[in-house]
Formats: sequence, structure tokens, C-alpha cells
Amino acid sequence: MAKPKKQPRPKAETPKGFRDYFGADVTERAAMLNAIAGVYHRYGFDALESSAVETVEALGKFLPDVDRPNDGVFAWQDEDEKWLALRYDLTAPLARVYAQHRNDLPTPYRRYAMGPVWRNEKPGPGRFRQFYQCDADTVGTASMAADAEICAMLADALEEVGIPRGDYVVRVNNRKVLNGIIDKVMDRAFAPDQQEGDPAVIERAMKVGQQRVYEITDDIMRTLDKFDKVGVEGVAELLTDGRKDASGAFIPGLKMPPVAVESLVKFLGAKADDNSQTVANLRNLVEDSPQGEEGVAELEQIADLLAAQGYGHDRIVIDPSVVRGLGYYTGPVFEAELTFEILDEKGRPRQFGSVAGGGRYDDLVARFTGQQVPAVGVSIGVDRLLAALREKGRIGGEAQGPVVVTVMDRDRMADYQAMVGELRQAGIRAEVYLGNPKNFGNQMKYADRRGSPVAIIEGGDEQARGVVQIKDLILGAQIAENATLEEWKERPSQYEVPRDQLVEKVRDILTGQS
Amino acid sequence: MAKPKKQPRPKAETPKGFRDYFGADVTERAAMLNAIAGVYHRYGFDALESSAVETVEALGKFLPDVDRPNDGVFAWQDEDEKWLALRYDLTAPLARVYAQHRNDLPTPYRRYAMGPVWRNEKPGPGRFRQFYQCDADTVGTASMAADAEICAMLADALEEVGIPRGDYVVRVNNRKVLNGIIDKVMDRAFAPDQQEGDPAVIERAMKVGQQRVYEITDDIMRTLDKFDKVGVEGVAELLTDGRKDASGAFIPGLKMPPVAVESLVKFLGAKADDNSQTVANLRNLVEDSPQGEEGVAELEQIADLLAAQGYGHDRIVIDPSVVRGLGYYTGPVFEAELTFEILDEKGRPRQFGSVAGGGRYDDLVARFTGQQVPAVGVSIGVDRLLAALREKGRIGGEAQGPVVVTVMDRDRMADYQAMVGELRQAGIRAEVYLGNPKNFGNQMKYADRRGSPVAIIEGGDEQARGVVQIKDLILGAQIAENATLEEWKERPSQYEVPRDQLVEKVRDILTGQS
Repeated sequence: MAKPKKQPRPKAETPKGFRDYFGADVTERAAMLNAIAGVYHRYGFDALESSAVETVEALGKFLPDVDRPNDGVFAWQDEDEKWLALRYDLTAPLARVYAQHRNDLPTPYRRYAMGPVWRNEKPGPGRFRQFYQCDADTVGTASMAADAEICAMLADALEEVGIPRGDYVVRVNNRKVLNGIIDKVMDRAFAPDQQEGDPAVIERAMKVGQQRVYEITDDIMRTLDKFDKVGVEGVAELLTDGRKDASGAFIPGLKMPPVAVESLVKFLGAKADDNSQTVANLRNLVEDSPQGEEGVAELEQIADLLAAQGYGHDRIVIDPSVVRGLGYYTGPVFEAELTFEILDEKGRPRQFGSVAGGGRYDDLVARFTGQQVPAVGVSIGVDRLLAALREKGRIGGEAQGPVVVTVMDRDRMADYQAMVGELRQAGIRAEVYLGNPKNFGNQMKYADRRGSPVAIIEGGDEQARGVVQIKDLILGAQIAENATLEEWKERPSQYEVPRDQLVEKVRDILTGQS
Repeated sequence: MAKPKKQPRPKAETPKGFRDYFGADVTERAAMLNAIAGVYHRYGFDALESSAVETVEALGKFLPDVDRPNDGVFAWQDEDEKWLALRYDLTAPLARVYAQHRNDLPTPYRRYAMGPVWRNEKPGPGRFRQFYQCDADTVGTASMAADAEICAMLADALEEVGIPRGDYVVRVNNRKVLNGIIDKVMDRAFAPDQQEGDPAVIERAMKVGQQRVYEITDDIMRTLDKFDKVGVEGVAELLTDGRKDASGAFIPGLKMPPVAVESLVKFLGAKADDNSQTVANLRNLVEDSPQGEEGVAELEQIADLLAAQGYGHDRIVIDPSVVRGLGYYTGPVFEAELTFEILDEKGRPRQFGSVAGGGRYDDLVARFTGQQVPAVGVSIGVDRLLAALREKGRIGGEAQGPVVVTVMDRDRMADYQAMVGELRQAGIRAEVYLGNPKNFGNQMKYADRRGSPVAIIEGGDEQARGVVQIKDLILGAQIAENATLEEWKERPSQYEVPRDQLVEKVRDILTGQS
């Protein structure tokens, strides 16, 4: 064996923006995703695990004028000169899979997918270049029943993982309603006899002709998106003359005519105490706009379908203030919001906020096949939902550590192994201390680091008498911290039991019955 | 919105050597890994999910004399010129993680890891460039109790996923025993008064001095590795004068002296009917070789520790013919073999064979820190074990398809949605047909493609009478295939039940009680 050339030692570190997940961070996420998958399965959705690696061509990220397509993706060139890349989401691969396998897939195709995605972006605090996504999509149907189904499924999934009813709401809006309102606003604002707006805006709108609505829609949508932060009045200011933000900086306004502002503000405020009233309010606002009326009818259909299954206004809310994603989706959009309060970094209470979003989009597969295929989907923010479950105390509470059997006599390892064997047979997590057993203090330190609830001790004396010592480490820690000497005496945290009662006693301690 | 430049349509295909996994292929693997994780957790092993992306430096695949380190890994250069790569296994990342976090991890550190790895190799039939690995390792202890524990855990994991006791065996060998035997063989074969071997071999052995054992060990190990295929006699031929293989081609022999061949053949055949006898046989073979005796003592310790926990010769077998991996590992090696028979591609019965392997290795972390850290681990072949479970009928049997509620009247979608809602509440997988409902035949074709066990039909007539039709599609298919007309009449596969008995009747059909 030739000796390898001496090289400097490599650094032991993850690449910048990547991280490792240990213990409960892995298993808690897996358990949550597993519970969600159970719900999705029950709804008839099939699992899909597409390749993590795609051709850059299929991802649609190839820029013909640069050598390396690294705008947002991690990419490299294969032996045969093909550019490959890690997927940056689960939707682009779904499009590729559907186009590739559409003759073998049912129509419509309901699928869910869970797994890591990779972004070649500047990492920051809490922003990693590899993270989990959890998506469900129905491809191949324009029926609003598909949209309704996804809203119901999302509600069920949240409850399944431990968000109680009342602590979440699925809010639903529709891009077509906003389009309809903008149609009408433009018609009225820029009709020859009603030109009350800013001449520059009007001129731009007139010049671009058919495109005018889309040009201005982008600006309007960006503005409405600030509703959460600045409220109705702030939005009205931003639509007209502009406003000062919290830092005192002036944000110029869109110079929209008052009649337009009035409609848009009404749109944002159309939400009523029940969904039928909201639908009626919206119907008034879009009257005579075919697109707008279509959007309202879709919202009504979704609300009716959901109500028939018992998903009422307490869980599903038609809400025109859901603006995020309106630019991306083509019809209904939805957002799951957790309504319980947490404290922000400055200690002020605020709602936990959004943990999932989705909507209808129609150009998924056309890139590959030229055919428009209607689709609707939802994506759960995995890290956000995990954080919410931790906030609610749904995960992270239980003792994860194993029972540790200490080693008092190195030659009696087989006896200690037999103990953990019995404990595991009873379904109890257990391990023998496998470090250097010389120093007993180190064994207890190890048990502490492992988060062990219980330690077992059997030295020569105990063996001779046929007993074992069982230390309740959690109680012991509590006593050490809080108890007076009197109390400590009354509540011992160490028990001596016959060897054959080991499993029983440990189970009692673990279930709090000791 | 500027119109994007027209580009040719991308091809909808996975990159060469990559594939997608659909439905049960995803969920069955997930369920198997979840069951294994449960066992590993009970043994005190902690989950670890390291980043999929590592620096090439940390993976140890960097070749200083080539521009791109693409020997086996997918690699690319980061903005800051660093080479990054996808992990090619789960052991190299464990080394990096342990070196990076060793001050925060318990000693010893027991961890398991499950996930995809990527190999930049030529793909072939059944050989993909992305596949799953499932590893468990204990880092930081030289105690044989760690090795024994991993063997027991492996046995438990196999039983947990559905391989019954008697259908598997964990075979254990030790690199040090073979080294000891080779030591002795060399001493005797090349002692000045006993030079009976081929002069060329002897000359090579003498010239390299201390290195001679290792030089020849590689050749010997490659030869012993053929034991499975060619048997003891074939190995003896290959150690001496060579032999013709099945195709008639001549494989030259190693020209070992007869005394060496005798020892090695005895080594291969040292397995007895119980582990103590095997240990005794091996002890005879390595007498006076300190390394060999150490290896035998280790095997004895492992067997004793396991026997004390009830893992006897029916599950754990000391077996010197386990040679695979001996070159890589430094002490004990183990292999889990499934002993039930399957038919090979030519219809001949053969044992299913190996599904997991592992052993002890000591140079894991030294690359990073300069310190030797003892470690032992096992890796389950995920795809192999899944294939075995399919062979045994443990997975893939159950109906995965959902109950399909057909749409007889497009305007009554809410009623159909209510039906699937009730079914799901009862834990039954169910969906409404969301394609174009015009052609009822298409709905039944869809149900067939979905593998649906049951279809529900409620037209206007049924609604008026307050009933639903329930079609047992599995029974229907059986009848269509096998039954005579008489039988068909006696066993109807369609039932009419009151609407409020829908869930009950479907459940009866699904549990075979109809």
C-alpha cells in the first residue's frame, strides 16, 4: 500500500449556508411530515419523490447569455456537457414529472411531495441554502372542487399535527376578483369624460393600450401587499400621494384617481362576518366585469363546497386582504394563518401568522408540451409549522434521552447488556455506558448530557444481594435545584429494587407513577 | 410584462441515471425506514441529518492535479472558488460532523442517518446515481460491547420490518484473525529452512520486508472473497496454480506454498455448529500470533455478550468465510444475510443473500483532527431490503387505491364531497372524481387506474330514494375473470344501501366482511 502524499488537514465544517440537524430536530420534523402525509394519503393524494437533480433545461433556469446558470440554483456540467442542477422547489420538478409521465398518470393527478430543496442564494440568519418543502398539488382539473379539497385538506393537516381548531384559519381570495376590480377602476378612471387622475398615469395607461391593466396591476398589487403593515389608510395614501414610513422616509404614491382608490379600499375591506356576505360584497364591487364575476363565483363555489363538508367560517374565510401570491397565481389563492399570539423579539404580542400558502396556476406543463394544464396546489412552510408546534408545546416537551445503565464492573458487561435488552423489549429506550467506566462521575455526566431520565447502578454489592439501584435523574435535578433538606429526605430520587423488578420500576418512573 | 424570448421546448426527462419514485415506492420505503429508526432510537442512537452538500475538501475527494474533482462525486465551484459536492455516502459526513461538533456530542456518540447519496458513476440497469443509505455508527469507543450492540440492533431491525427469525443470520468475522493467520503463514512459508513456495513470491515478500504481509494480504483477500462463488476447492486452486472459470478462461493462481494454502483453507472452514466451537477452532489456527489471538478474543467477547442477551447461534454466527469488507475494516466485520430462497433470473433457487454489512474502522476522524477515534458501524442496503420484503409479501400486498365517489350530477358536487368527507373521517382513503364527469365509462377507467377497491354511485334516482350504489371493484374484477354466470348471480359485486349506511358498508367491504 503506497503511502498517500501528505496534505494539510481539511477543515471540519459545513459549507456556508448549510447546516446539520441532530436528534429531535430530525425526528420531530419526520413525525410532523409523516402525520401530514397520512392526511394527504386519506384525501387520495399519491406520494411522489422526484430526483433531487434535474437538467437545468427542465428547471427553466438556463440563461443563454451566461456560461454558468447559477442564478439561484446549484448547477454543474455533466460529462456530456449537459448542465444539471439541484431542484430549487418541488413545483418545477412536478411539471417535468407530469409532462414526462402524463400517459401513465391518472387525470387528474393528485400528488404530494416532501423533501429538501436547494437555493444558491446569500445565506443569512435563519436562511439556509438547503431546507424542506412540503407540497400537495392537483394537476389536470379546472374544477373548483379541487381547490376546495385542498383547503379542507390543509385544515385537516394542521389539526392532525396539533394546531387546534380556533387557532388557525384558511383565508381564500381570488386573483380574478382583483383583476375585475382593476378592469372596472381603469374603465371608470380613464374614461374620456372622467379623467380625474394624474395626467402622467393616464398617459402611460392610454399608451400601453391592452397592456395597461397588467402594467398598473403590478404596482397596485405591491401596494395592497402592504395592507398587513400599514392598514387601509396607509394603503390609500400609497395609492395616491404617498406616505412617510416608520423611519420617516417618504414613499411616493401611485397617484391613482380617487374613484380607483375607493374601489380598491372597498375590496380590501369586503370581508364580512360570514362568507356569503363577503361574496355578496365582492359581487357588488365587480358588477359587469366578466372576469371579476367569474372570480366571485369561484369563491362562492369553494365556500359552498367546504360548508357542505362542515368547513365553515370558523375555519375557511373568504378574505380579499390575502394579497400575497396574487401576482403568481391565476385564480383562487389561499393562505393558512395561525391566529394564536406569540411574543416577538421585542416582547410584544403578535399573531403567529402564515404557515402555508397556495393557489391555482395554469402554465405548469405548457413549457414542456405546449398544452395548458390547469393545476392547483399548496405548500406548507415546514420550518414555520415546526416552530409553531414548538410554541404550542406540541413537540419538544418529552424526554428524548435513553435510560443509561452504568458500568460498575467492566467484566460484567454481559449483565448490563442483558438489562438494556430487557428494557428495550419493553419498548423503553435504553443504553449501556460504553465510554471508559473508570470514573463514575463521568458516567453520570454522560447521562446528563444524554438527557437521561433514569440511570441504573449495579455494583458487586447489589449483585450479591440481587438488587439494582435506580436513580430518577429528572426528580433528582428538580430536588437539587429547589428542595430544602427536609423535602429531599422525604422524596428520595433513588430506589433499590430487586433485579427482577427493574423494568417495572423504570416504567413507573417514566410514566410518573413512582 | 415583457414577453420572454421564444426558446425551444425543454425535454421532460430525468437526467441520465436518475429516477422518480411514485406512490407505494415512496411510502413503503418511508415506512420501512421509520420502523428501523424506531429500533435504533430504542438502542439509544440519535438521528443525524447532515447537509447533502459538503466541501470537497471535507469529503476527501479532492485531487490536486485536476481542475474538477469529479471522480465519483457531483461537484461544482462556489462563488468564492470553493469546491462543493453532493455527499457520496453517509460515513464521510459523519466524520466531518463528529470532528466539527465533538465537544458538544456525547462520548461515545451513537447516531443513525438515513437519506439519499449521490454517485457520479456510469449508470446501468438497477444502478442509479441517487439512492438511499441507512447507517448506524458508534463513534468514540473501542469496546466490543459496541460491536455486539450493533449486531443485536441489526437483528432486531430486520425482525421489526418483517423478516422472521430463522430467515436471516448476522455473520461475524474479524480482520485481525485473518491478519494473524497470514502472519503465521508467512513466517512458516518463508522461514529460511522452509522455503517451499514459488521463488518469485518469496523474493517479492523478502524484498518488501515489513510491508510484505500487506502486499500479499490484498491478493489473498481478493481470492478468499471468491469463496462464495468457487467454494473451498476453487479458492485452493486460485491460491496455488490457478483455475479455469465457468467461461473456460484461465485465472492464474497466487503460487502460494502448500502450508499457506492449508492454513487459509482451514480458516475458511473453521465455522462449527456453535460459536464457542468456531472460536476454539480459530484460536488453534492463530496460536502465537498476538494480532490473531486478539481478533479471536474479540469474536468471543461479541458472541458472549450477544448470548447473554439471548442472541444465540440461530441469529449470530461467527463465520470466517465473511470476507467482503475485510480490506476496509480494521477489526470485527459483520454481514446480515437473508437465508430464504428466491428464484434467480433463470428460475433457479438461490438464497436471497446479503442486505447489510458493517464493521470496525479507526481512521474516521483522524483526517480532520489528527487523533485516531475508534468507531464501528453498519449500513443496511435500503433497496435490497425493500426487495426482500416484497419477495416475502411483507409489503406491496394491500390495496393502496382510494374509494372513488363518482360524479353523476355535476351540480351536486357538494353532496359527493360530503361523502368523501365522511369516509375520511372514518379513516378511509377516499376521493371524488374530479375529471370531466360526462362519460361514466371514463370514471370507471379512472377508478381502475387508481387501483380503487370501491366506487360509489349516487344518481338522481338514488338520491330521490335516499340510497347509494356501492361497487366492490376488487370482487368485480375477480368475478369478471373467473366466475360462471351462475356464480356471478349469487355473488353480486354491487350493493344498494341507505345513504346513512355508506361508511359502514364500505368499511365492511374493505375489511372483507361483506
